[in-house]
Amino acid sequence: MRFRVYIAMSLDVYIATPDGAVDWLEPFFEEDYGYESFIREISCAVMGRVTYEQVLDFGEWPYPDHDVYVLSRSAIDGLPERAFAWSEEPEALVGRLEERKLDGDCWLIGGGQTIREFERLGYVDEYEVFVMPAFLGAGIPLFPSPFPAGALQLVSVMAWENGVVRLLYGRTLAGEQDPPTDGNQ
Amino acid sequence: MRFRVYIAMSLDVYIATPDGAVDWLEPFFEEDYGYESFIREISCAVMGRVTYEQVLDFGEWPYPDHDVYVLSRSAIDGLPERAFAWSEEPEALVGRLEERKLDGDCWLIGGGQTIREFERLGYVDEYEVFVMPAFLGAGIPLFPSPFPAGALQLVSVMAWENGVVRLLYGRTLAGEQDPPTDGNQ
Repeated sequence: MRFRVYIAMSLDVYIATPDGAVDWLEPFFEEDYGYESFIREISCAVMGRVTYEQVLDFGEWPYPDHDVYVLSRSAIDGLPERAFAWSEEPEALVGRLEERKLDGDCWLIGGGQTIREFERLGYVDEYEVFVMPAFLGAGIPLFPSPFPAGALQLVSVMAWENGVVRLLYGRTLAGEQDPPTDGNQ
Repeated sequence: MRFRVYIAMSLDVYIATPDGAVDWLEPFFEEDYGYESFIREISCAVMGRVTYEQVLDFGEWPYPDHDVYVLSRSAIDGLPERAFAWSEEPEALVGRLEERKLDGDCWLIGGGQTIREFERLGYVDEYEVFVMPAFLGAGIPLFPSPFPAGALQLVSVMAWENGVVRLLYGRTLAGEQDPPTDGNQ
């Protein structure tokens, strides 16, 4: 199971306006950005409590077919079906998910603080970041400071006619760029 | 004369570590990133006082062949040849540069606050941003908040083997995306 980030940000790296609104993304809804294909590879998802509240505000729960873990120190009333509150540490959640031996990957939906927690633990395998052709100017950062410093490995770049750019990064593992030059392999 | 930004940033949109250091860029110096071609199109440059002090710290003055205006409310002693302190408003500098009818463009070197001042005035014609495959985690932001919100027009995307991605944006002018559908044109 890989832990994957799949998210849109402005060029100034905000995921939402200061009040949490994401309607600035609506002009870009004309494309699918590989979402249908991505979501088929996902078997569970993780989000923070603030993101959960915002998603609820959008209306219909968008993840009825996935187990979604909401990081929250307190209990949450009225969770949608297949959504669960998780009050223990993220490490324990990773352990639980690995025990379950799910077929697919885990989507780290967000927000920035949840992604930061998983990055700190070294659990983020892939960043699939969609850079929107816009400045938000202020808002909720995708990579809140202090974020762990570190190298990334660019996997691919893709651009759409409407100016959206997908940057796909994996992690640079120690030694990964220097494969063995002798031995059995 | 166009005002152009040409700058490197981390994926989390920092141009330098918190102390202003840019040595994190050194692993990427193996490529030219179009700089030789870019600099031939430039006839003058603008930078903020803090950026100026940092550039001085790097050693040899890197812009001996260009007029460089350093935004500074106070006088600056010992300026390099062809470098000038500019204590008036940026608008007045733009007026002065346009009067001079220079052949080339003006490079807005930085830092973030200088770019923000020009963006606020609507003077930035082009953003050529090099996204390095790394998180700095904290530092000096390229687009300090509050930055003016607004749309950008993606012109092109280019990626290097080492994971650097160039995002080139122009400005979306009012009406530019809706050309007249009748009339003489």
